[in-house]
Amino acid sequence: MTTKTNILVGLLLVPLTFALAQDNISADPERMEQRIKALSEFGANADGGVDRVAFSEADIAGRAYIMDLMRGAGLETRVDTAGNIIGRREGSEPNLPPILFGSHIDSVPGGGNYDGDVGVIGAIEVIELLEAQSIRTRHPLEVVVFSDEEGGLTGSRAMAGKIGDDTLSVLSHSGITIGEGILALGGDPDRLDLARREPGEVMAFLELHIEQGAILDEEEIDIGVVEGIVGIRWWDVTIEGFANHAGTTPMNRRWDAMVSAAEYILAVNQVATSMPGSQVATVGKIQAAPGAPNVIPGEVVLSLEIRDLSAEKMQRVFDEISAAGTRIADARNTPIRYEEIAVDVAPAPTDERLRRIIATSADNLGLSSKFMPSGAGHDAQDMALIAPTGMIFVPSEKGISHSPQEFTSAQDMANGASVLFKTVLEIDNGALE
Amino acid sequence: MTTKTNILVGLLLVPLTFALAQDNISADPERMEQRIKALSEFGANADGGVDRVAFSEADIAGRAYIMDLMRGAGLETRVDTAGNIIGRREGSEPNLPPILFGSHIDSVPGGGNYDGDVGVIGAIEVIELLEAQSIRTRHPLEVVVFSDEEGGLTGSRAMAGKIGDDTLSVLSHSGITIGEGILALGGDPDRLDLARREPGEVMAFLELHIEQGAILDEEEIDIGVVEGIVGIRWWDVTIEGFANHAGTTPMNRRWDAMVSAAEYILAVNQVATSMPGSQVATVGKIQAAPGAPNVIPGEVVLSLEIRDLSAEKMQRVFDEISAAGTRIADARNTPIRYEEIAVDVAPAPTDERLRRIIATSADNLGLSSKFMPSGAGHDAQDMALIAPTGMIFVPSEKGISHSPQEFTSAQDMANGASVLFKTVLEIDNGALE
Repeated sequence: MTTKTNILVGLLLVPLTFALAQDNISADPERMEQRIKALSEFGANADGGVDRVAFSEADIAGRAYIMDLMRGAGLETRVDTAGNIIGRREGSEPNLPPILFGSHIDSVPGGGNYDGDVGVIGAIEVIELLEAQSIRTRHPLEVVVFSDEEGGLTGSRAMAGKIGDDTLSVLSHSGITIGEGILALGGDPDRLDLARREPGEVMAFLELHIEQGAILDEEEIDIGVVEGIVGIRWWDVTIEGFANHAGTTPMNRRWDAMVSAAEYILAVNQVATSMPGSQVATVGKIQAAPGAPNVIPGEVVLSLEIRDLSAEKMQRVFDEISAAGTRIADARNTPIRYEEIAVDVAPAPTDERLRRIIATSADNLGLSSKFMPSGAGHDAQDMALIAPTGMIFVPSEKGISHSPQEFTSAQDMANGASVLFKTVLEIDNGALE
Repeated sequence: MTTKTNILVGLLLVPLTFALAQDNISADPERMEQRIKALSEFGANADGGVDRVAFSEADIAGRAYIMDLMRGAGLETRVDTAGNIIGRREGSEPNLPPILFGSHIDSVPGGGNYDGDVGVIGAIEVIELLEAQSIRTRHPLEVVVFSDEEGGLTGSRAMAGKIGDDTLSVLSHSGITIGEGILALGGDPDRLDLARREPGEVMAFLELHIEQGAILDEEEIDIGVVEGIVGIRWWDVTIEGFANHAGTTPMNRRWDAMVSAAEYILAVNQVATSMPGSQVATVGKIQAAPGAPNVIPGEVVLSLEIRDLSAEKMQRVFDEISAAGTRIADARNTPIRYEEIAVDVAPAPTDERLRRIIATSADNLGLSSKFMPSGAGHDAQDMALIAPTGMIFVPSEKGISHSPQEFTSAQDMANGASVLFKTVLEIDNGALE
């Protein structure tokens, strides 16, 4: 379903002359691609991707490159106590709260060249366009490069005031703790409170990002209007049977935990597939005990993960799965028990007004768009706790992500930056007021 | 289904007067139970079972106890080059081939007090009864205690000439190799050929054993007439999907190897359950890759084990499972491939005449009996390669085995020994000639 918001909505939101004036301005695909390529040199690996895990030398060098770009575009840069890079451009009304936009440049081990990077280069591109057009916004603008997104949204959690002391002692992929890492970035792990922004202090937050899924690519849609970042719930599910000799126990005298687990996995799939909506449910991990080919499993433990934009919907999916599980447990005399693992990811809906503004901006640029959830986590989910938040997706070729094969075309990146540019201007022009 | 062979069959097989004379003789439950208890002291563990793995000090001490019992019963004992204990009683016609019967006394780690032991104590009980009745058989009799049954049927494989040089270097549970173990038992691993018996050299082999399953116990049947030891075939089954992000991949864009594996496991169970016969098929082991709760499995590897008394039937079960697998693979676009693991366990049917003789013997003793396969492996399966072989099961309480909770009542043990006694006499009296 492609949502093309009627141009009338756009006309109602912004003065006609202004809207028409901006329609001719769009991001520069070549410049963006050249910068993505330059950034991909930092931590480049043999497979064509990057190993630029947070706090590594490659991360620190990449951040220096980005700060150079920021300064070149006229931003004043600083690093907050959480290690976030902030590039600020003053507004004509400096007392207004700033509009923030950005993403991250750290990668997973063996990562690609677009995840996070497109949002950072796209944010700088917005500043370049404003400079080129000599546009001074009313609100101050801040381009943010969050620290350690892939290691647990460290920078954005700190900004939202959600980070705990226990986080600082967690060992990161770089081999040092997150606390040591923040220090290495120029932050101050002892004063994370200074990085915090209170609700009301930020006018809005926007993040441009690659989809990391195949929907836009397969449906040939330019822009994903993100409805929110899905919540995640996670259980260890234990199915109890009775371990017995696979040779001496006839088929009709078995309490086979594996057979019950198989029925259960199909039920999980069936429930998630048959309900309307975009909920997902996954069994990604399974272990049978004792786990020998010649012993009927006495116990199977499997993981159950449910994601959706609505906490209530996640509960409903779980309830249906659980009811199906009870029927299986009763019919096969193999009890099922659940242990919920705290993953602390509540659904983070984006701001409805920003969704409409993003869709209208895409429409005005002649770009197709689609409302969709983000199945992956993003810094935007923390920012949504303290500010109206919007998120713009651009296509990921074949949906591949967290891999050197990650790819988004220069034009798709530029489309995203153009929509970001227009959305920033709409907000600045009072669309949220 | 209980098989009570008509007494007429028994009358046709043996002279009437002889049959009547033996019907009053039966094994002594108290003596057998006392000996089982005495044997269970060797390697006794805190849980009430034994750790008497082959070649251990407990095994060696237990074997010494058994050889004392044998000599006390009038047997002449020796240890063959494979470490098998042979207790011989000469016949009145010493040139006739010997009738062999026995089992083993080694246990699995954390084993029980009946598996193997009942067959050995029962075999000695037969000798005690012959001595008490001053019966001299025509054929020489040999009570055999096979070495290292639980570690791979070592002694019986050597006797059948099936043991390879590579077996000797295998590390046993006792911490030494099988070759070193045979030496420790008083055997000679370099001369295993001397332990070999050629077809025709052995008149018959009989083994009394606990069922290790729950059929006799639950159906309250005294004696299992073993139709044979099932063959075992074993495959690693690999189901290929496409690993993907569990958050960003909608339900209808997944090639989820786990969901296909679940359908496959149910198909395995359905095929084995729906075909007439006593075949079993088991999935005991499963692994999903990458195996993370937040990643759709790109590959699942599971074990498939099929057992039956007929090689042709095993193939038919596999063919049906394989056909169901192909339908699943095609429908879900998740290819399935098989790697057969060589387990080298062909079905070993028992001798049909011996089955009838065992059933008749039970019947004459007023014991109920049932024809059944042995789903577990036994020394009898090797002996079946070189001699007419019969096997007698007695009930295992709740079917529990390879556990300290293993239990068979004194009366059930004695019933088995009485049937063994009568069967030996029937063979001696020419029933197989």
